[in-house]
Amino acid sequence: MVRSFAGSADPRFLEVMSSLVRHLHAFARDVRLTEEEWQHAIDFLTRTGQICTPTRQEFILLSDVLGLSMMTVGINSPGGDGITEDTVFGPFFVQGSPRIDLDGDVAADTAGPPCHLSGRVLDQDGNPVAGARIEVWEADEDGFYDVQYDHGELRGRGHLFTDDEGRYGFWSVVPAPYGIPSDGPVGELLTAAGRSPMRPAHVHFMITAEGHRRLITHLFVADGPHLSSDAVFGVKPSLVVPFARHDPDEGPGGRQLADDWYSAVYDFTLARETTSTAPIENPPGGG
Amino acid sequence: MVRSFAGSADPRFLEVMSSLVRHLHAFARDVRLTEEEWQHAIDFLTRTGQICTPTRQEFILLSDVLGLSMMTVGINSPGGDGITEDTVFGPFFVQGSPRIDLDGDVAADTAGPPCHLSGRVLDQDGNPVAGARIEVWEADEDGFYDVQYDHGELRGRGHLFTDDEGRYGFWSVVPAPYGIPSDGPVGELLTAAGRSPMRPAHVHFMITAEGHRRLITHLFVADGPHLSSDAVFGVKPSLVVPFARHDPDEGPGGRQLADDWYSAVYDFTLARETTSTAPIENPPGGG
Ligand SMILES: [Fe+2]
Ligand SMILES: [Fe+2]
Repeated sequence: MVRSFAGSADPRFLEVMSSLVRHLHAFARDVRLTEEEWQHAIDFLTRTGQICTPTRQEFILLSDVLGLSMMTVGINSPGGDGITEDTVFGPFFVQGSPRIDLDGDVAADTAGPPCHLSGRVLDQDGNPVAGARIEVWEADEDGFYDVQYDHGELRGRGHLFTDDEGRYGFWSVVPAPYGIPSDGPVGELLTAAGRSPMRPAHVHFMITAEGHRRLITHLFVADGPHLSSDAVFGVKPSLVVPFARHDPDEGPGGRQLADDWYSAVYDFTLARETTSTAPIENPPGGG
Repeated sequence: MVRSFAGSADPRFLEVMSSLVRHLHAFARDVRLTEEEWQHAIDFLTRTGQICTPTRQEFILLSDVLGLSMMTVGINSPGGDGITEDTVFGPFFVQGSPRIDLDGDVAADTAGPPCHLSGRVLDQDGNPVAGARIEVWEADEDGFYDVQYDHGELRGRGHLFTDDEGRYGFWSVVPAPYGIPSDGPVGELLTAAGRSPMRPAHVHFMITAEGHRRLITHLFVADGPHLSSDAVFGVKPSLVVPFARHDPDEGPGGRQLADDWYSAVYDFTLARETTSTAPIENPPGGG
């Protein structure tokens, strides 16, 4: 059965499928998979596909809770040299977020205390990256993304570009911890495993700039709950950032705050494009 | 991540999920899965789930073409002692098939030359099994199952019960080779692999009887094409049966045949129920 892919014209396809079949069969042999379990797996995968919509991606969630997403991130992120680390993409990214200006607001009607995030986007030599596109998305104070509501509006997400000095800055709300969607097959899996669905509070970033490797990451709120028990294994210490509380005041961009507000500062360092295509050694434990 | 299932109250669930995660991660490490490949896999699985309907099961088809179905059959079928071997269940079984009497016809309006199948259902000691329920289903001469048409009728499938001497017999049509559905994700996979979608001609059987292990199998037509290149790896030599051609005549059950017709005879031997629940040793190569 492994050999059944030998007729492929694409050697990479052959390599991937042969390995997949070998590991899939080894799994079934190891656990002596029963026919009832096989049937349950077929049913589980079918329901996982059928609950997906343009704004709900249950297979990404499944990959996330099985640690496959972080495994893939680890394989593909070069790391080192002070480059900002990647983490999971997650199931909540949506194309077509609104563009905002420097120090604009992506919150729209997202519920939660105001929060300003800022910093710079740098290259590996510490030089500013001008015109980098920054996509951000986050949950509201109740722990839900816009697409989990029925209102049909984009809230708590947007994109902006760095200025000539590589600076970015935007307003949003303080991110809150949340439980990943648990009303579908992945929720059943977590329940059966006795696992918590909770993720620590975070803001998602995807940063793209010509000549640089695309960065997909989060900033996590320091000292919050669930940092050491993230349901999707996404936390890296280098991405945990203090969020400062401020009394009512004038904030960045001249915004007048009538209540407490928050801020955090983080500089992102992008890897050169070449690092993603250079040959990569097998990691320890591979094979 | 393997340890994340340690909180499960069910030791079997823990065993299966821990092994699954280990093998899934080993696969990703072995091939150094890229983010584009991961994204393609997410998309592939999502489409596989979304093409499923009550009469189309693309995940079973995927399991079949990856050899996982036959691997599962091999693990769970006791074999030996003259017991009839199992093979893949396939994606085309439908609940609620019509009941027919001995030597009745399941063809309905299925296109193809008439064919009579008969024999006995026996236990491991060679004694007849009375009242065994036999479900049969097959494709028409164009290689399509009833559920692949829009007519919404059940054709080419039915169920009957063995008599006091364990005998069964029914009319249908001669099964034809067919290509598994190739207009979905599994078809893409086979095309990319340069693999044929063809299966050798066969009739599906599912036989259940109190005190016996459920048998899920096929009878394959001897000397037909694709017997050594079944797209789902389902052929076992013990299931390949000669189909005899007859001139127009009176056939079994007093049926008058104006054209050529066919027949085949096969005795099924069921395993005792206990063999399916007894402890089973690890197979060579397991673990
Ligand atoms: Fe998130
Ligand atoms: Fe079939």
